[in-house]
Amino acid sequence: MITPRAATQEEVRRHNLGRLLRLLHIRGGTSRAELTALTRLNRSTVRALTGELVEAGLVRESAPVGRGAAGRPSIRVEPESERVFVLAIDVGVERVVAARIGLGGVVLDRRSTQQVRGDSDPPQVLHRLKVMVGELLSAAPVDARCVGAGVSVCGVVDSRDGTVRFAPNVGWVDVPFGPMLADHLGLALIAVGNDADLGVMAEHLRGAAADASDAIYLSGEVGVGGGIILGGQPLVGAGGYAGEVGHMSVNPEGRICRCGRRGCWETEVGEDGVFRSTGIPPEAGFEQVLAAYAAGDGAALAGVHRAGHWLGVGVVDLVNIFNPQVIVFGGAVRHIFSLTEQLVKEALATALAAPRAQVRLAPPALGADSTLVGAAELAFARLLEDPLGTLTTPTRTEAAIV
Amino acid sequence: MITPRAATQEEVRRHNLGRLLRLLHIRGGTSRAELTALTRLNRSTVRALTGELVEAGLVRESAPVGRGAAGRPSIRVEPESERVFVLAIDVGVERVVAARIGLGGVVLDRRSTQQVRGDSDPPQVLHRLKVMVGELLSAAPVDARCVGAGVSVCGVVDSRDGTVRFAPNVGWVDVPFGPMLADHLGLALIAVGNDADLGVMAEHLRGAAADASDAIYLSGEVGVGGGIILGGQPLVGAGGYAGEVGHMSVNPEGRICRCGRRGCWETEVGEDGVFRSTGIPPEAGFEQVLAAYAAGDGAALAGVHRAGHWLGVGVVDLVNIFNPQVIVFGGAVRHIFSLTEQLVKEALATALAAPRAQVRLAPPALGADSTLVGAAELAFARLLEDPLGTLTTPTRTEAAIV
Repeated sequence: MITPRAATQEEVRRHNLGRLLRLLHIRGGTSRAELTALTRLNRSTVRALTGELVEAGLVRESAPVGRGAAGRPSIRVEPESERVFVLAIDVGVERVVAARIGLGGVVLDRRSTQQVRGDSDPPQVLHRLKVMVGELLSAAPVDARCVGAGVSVCGVVDSRDGTVRFAPNVGWVDVPFGPMLADHLGLALIAVGNDADLGVMAEHLRGAAADASDAIYLSGEVGVGGGIILGGQPLVGAGGYAGEVGHMSVNPEGRICRCGRRGCWETEVGEDGVFRSTGIPPEAGFEQVLAAYAAGDGAALAGVHRAGHWLGVGVVDLVNIFNPQVIVFGGAVRHIFSLTEQLVKEALATALAAPRAQVRLAPPALGADSTLVGAAELAFARLLEDPLGTLTTPTRTEAAIV
Repeated sequence: MITPRAATQEEVRRHNLGRLLRLLHIRGGTSRAELTALTRLNRSTVRALTGELVEAGLVRESAPVGRGAAGRPSIRVEPESERVFVLAIDVGVERVVAARIGLGGVVLDRRSTQQVRGDSDPPQVLHRLKVMVGELLSAAPVDARCVGAGVSVCGVVDSRDGTVRFAPNVGWVDVPFGPMLADHLGLALIAVGNDADLGVMAEHLRGAAADASDAIYLSGEVGVGGGIILGGQPLVGAGGYAGEVGHMSVNPEGRICRCGRRGCWETEVGEDGVFRSTGIPPEAGFEQVLAAYAAGDGAALAGVHRAGHWLGVGVVDLVNIFNPQVIVFGGAVRHIFSLTEQLVKEALATALAAPRAQVRLAPPALGADSTLVGAAELAFARLLEDPLGTLTTPTRTEAAIV
């Protein structure tokens, strides 16, 4: 232990401002008494700090509803969700979503476009996003401030510079999408993350994995990726490439995967596998699979059950390898899971007894929005790290929409 | 940030004593000048602290061999490997090993007994260990001190109380082996760990994974387990059960595993799978497989190549899932890997390009001793945490062999 330099009073203050704002961002409205208890700061400090956040327009205080621990009414503090927002963008294979998401994680407004596969060249996606973001910003209240932007992409991302290294399902290789989009929208900086990593982050902060230290979120449409949190920390790997659970070999007699290997998990449980098994053409969209299944179509039933079977096999692998508390079925896997939940749970009986007893299988609490909300969390990170610094440094004006 | 209580001078001193001793334990002999550079403590502090360690009999100082940074000779400090030791024990399916391992990780002396499968009831193992440990201690120098004991077991272990929860290959369920062995040997406390977890720890501290933040060590004889380090931290899972990579399903058309599932990785690459594939009876021992292979026996060649094929498949899964820097092939898998390295490396070509480029496949630098050395590290932990505290508290005499 080299005795660390003591933090300055100013550093402590800024850090505590961030802690308070993060609490309010995750919990929503909270009484000052609760904030005092949660932070273990003293009452006068909490009052002074929330006062600063009020002045900065990040939170508001309202009349007390209940009573504090001491029997006195306690002021309620709420994030300024309508006035402080980020732009969150989710680039998938078949749709692109852009949303205004307010402090507190509230989806305020959204635009979405379907795209045909193969129609997702970066310039086309950028164009669509420019239109959608323009609409979102025009519709925003005049006094609302944009404090950041974040993007979820279904591919391997270098988060340091916002480059999408490899996104086979949209056909991107080494696309500097973050900088390109920032340039296109006139923003200073756009954070980019992998969809599965963002999905697990969002479900861990405010969803089905909120109480879990060890959680797996499955993402993807055509492909299947895994966002994995272990001991409260994201699984990253040596170079940031970890979590490619879609490329576990589950069926050596199975189909050739686009990665070149045979029988990868995603060839069985990804959308394309289901299209092939059901005989429904991908152009029809996955809704067609769901409709045919609902109508009791024989091929649809068989194809979906096949996917459910292999979903169970991979889930058991993950339970044995990771001993997670929860596996959340996001992306297109969400549909397969909801249709074959019983089958997957039966498969779970073949997992080792000890980890089996500790795992829950769950749909995403945020539905189809886990990755979108995760992109918003990425965008909020800088504000939550240093609430007033972000607003007063020169980048604040740069970061505003031109 | 609740400003942390400043550490007292005494706490800082004890912490720094631990840091110095740990450095010497891992690096072996080191000059005081190097210790100064590595710890960033000042020279007089290092001199004073090593003086304390010398006085406690934990390290010795010797005449300088080279010259320090300032051009002056620098005293060399070395761990007292002969005088300060732990008992390390490795309970496998087919053999039990006990060793005296000195500070610095030096195997000073060892005893080993082969055991026939099914002949590993706890009382029998305890009896064998009592004999072996007795011999080891009789042969130790009279001034040598035992500072702890650690055990590696091929099973799921509750490290808090030293209970082996589930070790199917030796047939143990809920055996409080740590307390039983401590009682049998007259020791106060014996730390117990899972073989794969200890193997990866040892290879990470002083072996093939020494430079890796993300490493996987495969252990096992009959079964196959994974000790996994991610971002420098061991993978534990929600309840301590993570790492059961031997129970990934790789071959759905394969054999029924003793876990009840079909086609688990260990049914193909574990010893029993190889015995079945080669037609050699388990009673003959794995050496017989190696001998038949070396002799060019057709069934042995085919059986070992089959295991190599499946070894490669599982390795690719692990590379895609974890993006590790190194996979170390320990336990019985060590033999399969050394015979089929080319086959495994060919399989690796089917891993995703990015993680593939970052992984090394390696034999264990500690050979068959990774788990044994890991057990020693477990035993040294308390001494390294607080070098003088351990020696001066009442438990020191209790911890000595009666």
